[in-house]
Amino acid sequence: MTWSPTQPESVFTYGAPALKFGTGAALEIGHDVAALGASRVLVVTDAGVLATGAPDLVAEALRRAGLVAVVHDSAHVEPTDASLEVAIARARADGPFDAVVAVGGGSSIDTAKAVDLILSNGGDLMDYVNAPVGAGRAPQRPLLPLVAVPTTTGTGAESTTICVLDVLALEVKTGISHVRLRPVLAIVDPDLTVTQPAGVTASAGMDILCHALESWTARPFTSYERKRPEQRVPYCGSNPISDMWAERSMSLLAGAFRAAVHDGAGAGARGEMALAATFAGLGFGNAGVHVPHANAYPIAGRVRGFHPADYPREEPMVPHGMAVALTAPEAFRWTFDAAPERHLAAARLLDPGHGPRWQSEPRDVLPGVLRDLMRDIDMPNGLYAVGYDERDVDGLVEGALAQQRLLATSPREVTADDLAGIIGRSMSLWD
Amino acid sequence: MTWSPTQPESVFTYGAPALKFGTGAALEIGHDVAALGASRVLVVTDAGVLATGAPDLVAEALRRAGLVAVVHDSAHVEPTDASLEVAIARARADGPFDAVVAVGGGSSIDTAKAVDLILSNGGDLMDYVNAPVGAGRAPQRPLLPLVAVPTTTGTGAESTTICVLDVLALEVKTGISHVRLRPVLAIVDPDLTVTQPAGVTASAGMDILCHALESWTARPFTSYERKRPEQRVPYCGSNPISDMWAERSMSLLAGAFRAAVHDGAGAGARGEMALAATFAGLGFGNAGVHVPHANAYPIAGRVRGFHPADYPREEPMVPHGMAVALTAPEAFRWTFDAAPERHLAAARLLDPGHGPRWQSEPRDVLPGVLRDLMRDIDMPNGLYAVGYDERDVDGLVEGALAQQRLLATSPREVTADDLAGIIGRSMSLWD
Repeated sequence: MTWSPTQPESVFTYGAPALKFGTGAALEIGHDVAALGASRVLVVTDAGVLATGAPDLVAEALRRAGLVAVVHDSAHVEPTDASLEVAIARARADGPFDAVVAVGGGSSIDTAKAVDLILSNGGDLMDYVNAPVGAGRAPQRPLLPLVAVPTTTGTGAESTTICVLDVLALEVKTGISHVRLRPVLAIVDPDLTVTQPAGVTASAGMDILCHALESWTARPFTSYERKRPEQRVPYCGSNPISDMWAERSMSLLAGAFRAAVHDGAGAGARGEMALAATFAGLGFGNAGVHVPHANAYPIAGRVRGFHPADYPREEPMVPHGMAVALTAPEAFRWTFDAAPERHLAAARLLDPGHGPRWQSEPRDVLPGVLRDLMRDIDMPNGLYAVGYDERDVDGLVEGALAQQRLLATSPREVTADDLAGIIGRSMSLWD
Repeated sequence: MTWSPTQPESVFTYGAPALKFGTGAALEIGHDVAALGASRVLVVTDAGVLATGAPDLVAEALRRAGLVAVVHDSAHVEPTDASLEVAIARARADGPFDAVVAVGGGSSIDTAKAVDLILSNGGDLMDYVNAPVGAGRAPQRPLLPLVAVPTTTGTGAESTTICVLDVLALEVKTGISHVRLRPVLAIVDPDLTVTQPAGVTASAGMDILCHALESWTARPFTSYERKRPEQRVPYCGSNPISDMWAERSMSLLAGAFRAAVHDGAGAGARGEMALAATFAGLGFGNAGVHVPHANAYPIAGRVRGFHPADYPREEPMVPHGMAVALTAPEAFRWTFDAAPERHLAAARLLDPGHGPRWQSEPRDVLPGVLRDLMRDIDMPNGLYAVGYDERDVDGLVEGALAQQRLLATSPREVTADDLAGIIGRSMSLWD
């Protein structure tokens, strides 16, 4: 299948935070935030991350540079409109602030984006939430400088322009998306991830891998109709820059992923995973992701009784990276026809050892690479294993179809039947 | 030779402008500058670029978005303190402005940086010039948003944090260097380079190639002693991100450079050269360049009677990229021992055809690739050909040694004798 735009797009865009990467980088944050002209800093995190000590380490480093630092464990894992309102109210009560630092995973970073947006631009959260759920208003003023310190090697939130949230009354997952939401600086310190248990490394790593693979296989920017400048979106389809980040991320994963899960203490593999996460984020933050991420929303959202190892036990959950991974092998079998050589190239990057799978049908090669990896790192064997069955397919399809922002970068146009096929074939992935 | 730091550096930094790339991108500038909150825009260019029409095209695009745009052809090719003072005075007289757009090569972009610095932070130029020539003061306030629209496929000025200038009274080339000088947005439109003559494409292309090769072979960031945050400099040595940009740039050059020089009308090769220039800039802007660029300062600065094809005839000149290229083959023969495999890898990227040169001595391989390329694109055959001889070596060495900011990223420590050898062996490059 090929796209045939009458006036093909000729322009792509690229944006990224500045980056400070390496062991010990987080301890330098006082200098970096002071250089942004700040004096009173809000540190946003969640209770789980707070318990690791990382946010206090960051706050102390800010104070050593003469800054006031107030730590709020106001982020809810998977932010909701209600959790964001609470975080905003706490920030308003303790403000004013002139910079925001997020310490944690995607939930902390996204919460910090929402808090920063309201502190700097006023108004109500729903004014800015994507239409039709919210009013879709663009921020008129710059945000306060936002610095992201990711503590899980999977999030790309430090590189993206979006804050994802559940609107509880409507039972819908949506977002706030604007280029001003992108952090100005990401400080990635592999030391902050050494306490990450194997199950979290495995799920978060599958999120990295799918960021890279989905942006690598995303619909090319040249396949769209020419946009007017005001129509441009941050996710512009695969392009020469996002391709480069994705390729490099996949090569790093090929060398480090299994070792990071099974021998997590090794600083080398941790550092490479942190770099792979950063690179994948810098790529997909401009190209976009597609089917596996769209499917992940309802797979995570409709969970009933699944409790994964190494995650908090209080509530049932399918971690984001796991939810993304579960339909990835079948999604990439389905996208194969859009760009066969690209799928085979990805398989070669992820499995440079060239095992016996290279004698399979070409469309089975990449799914085989993914299945073998998932089995080796103890991912669940498909949707059955996290509590879904054939009766859930229609609901999961409906939830995935609602993610049109993501499906817009799918390399093939996606119908309900296509999704039903991908999801139905993902119930059990291996024997 | 190996570096043995007692406490090896573990942190590297990366910064870059946002990027809009592609045919027609320059026509969208009104939207992009308006989105930065600007209303009165100063467009900085030089007389030669003004004559191509590109600055007026950009100004018209700004006006179509409802902005006021004032065009100053106030940039001098190779800016001096005197030329920058004139540009600043003109800008002050016509201001106030709330954004600056640079249209042109490195000279226009660097002039715009200096003008923006003084408009936004006040004071005198020499307050900010690197010590000991100037007072080396850091700007205390953010600059006005600076958007760079490069019109030659060679400059990396759109990605860097430095403004290079000659201080005439002292006969010295120096700079102003601060992270705030980096443009916030680079708009790279290959259409703006289609009128570039072959000689300019060749020289500018050698600048791209040396940006990539010098940052690729630069001293690794891990070989330095651990820095305190306030000691960090934008040029931090080769690192995983600058390596990636350099590699990709070299692969693009391998496919497009000769075609862009000899068949300049082909939009494909032009686009690839523009992309190669952007990638190389994004890499070296964070890693640094070393010996060939250090040598280029005196080679360009001490020119007597050389008049290259396709450049203005009024004054003798060795174009920057040509000046960089002339000692590159011998410089990379000398740096070979610091990292043999890296030099061979670069040769493979630049010459994927693997010609008969692969039977030569390993240290001769990369110099051979460069010499063959230079001959094919009509670069001068060494320093004799641009008017230097053995009597000039001492003066050229002295001028190169003054570029300690650049030599700090050389992969081997550089003595006057080393430079004399490299320069002396660069008098004639091929038979």
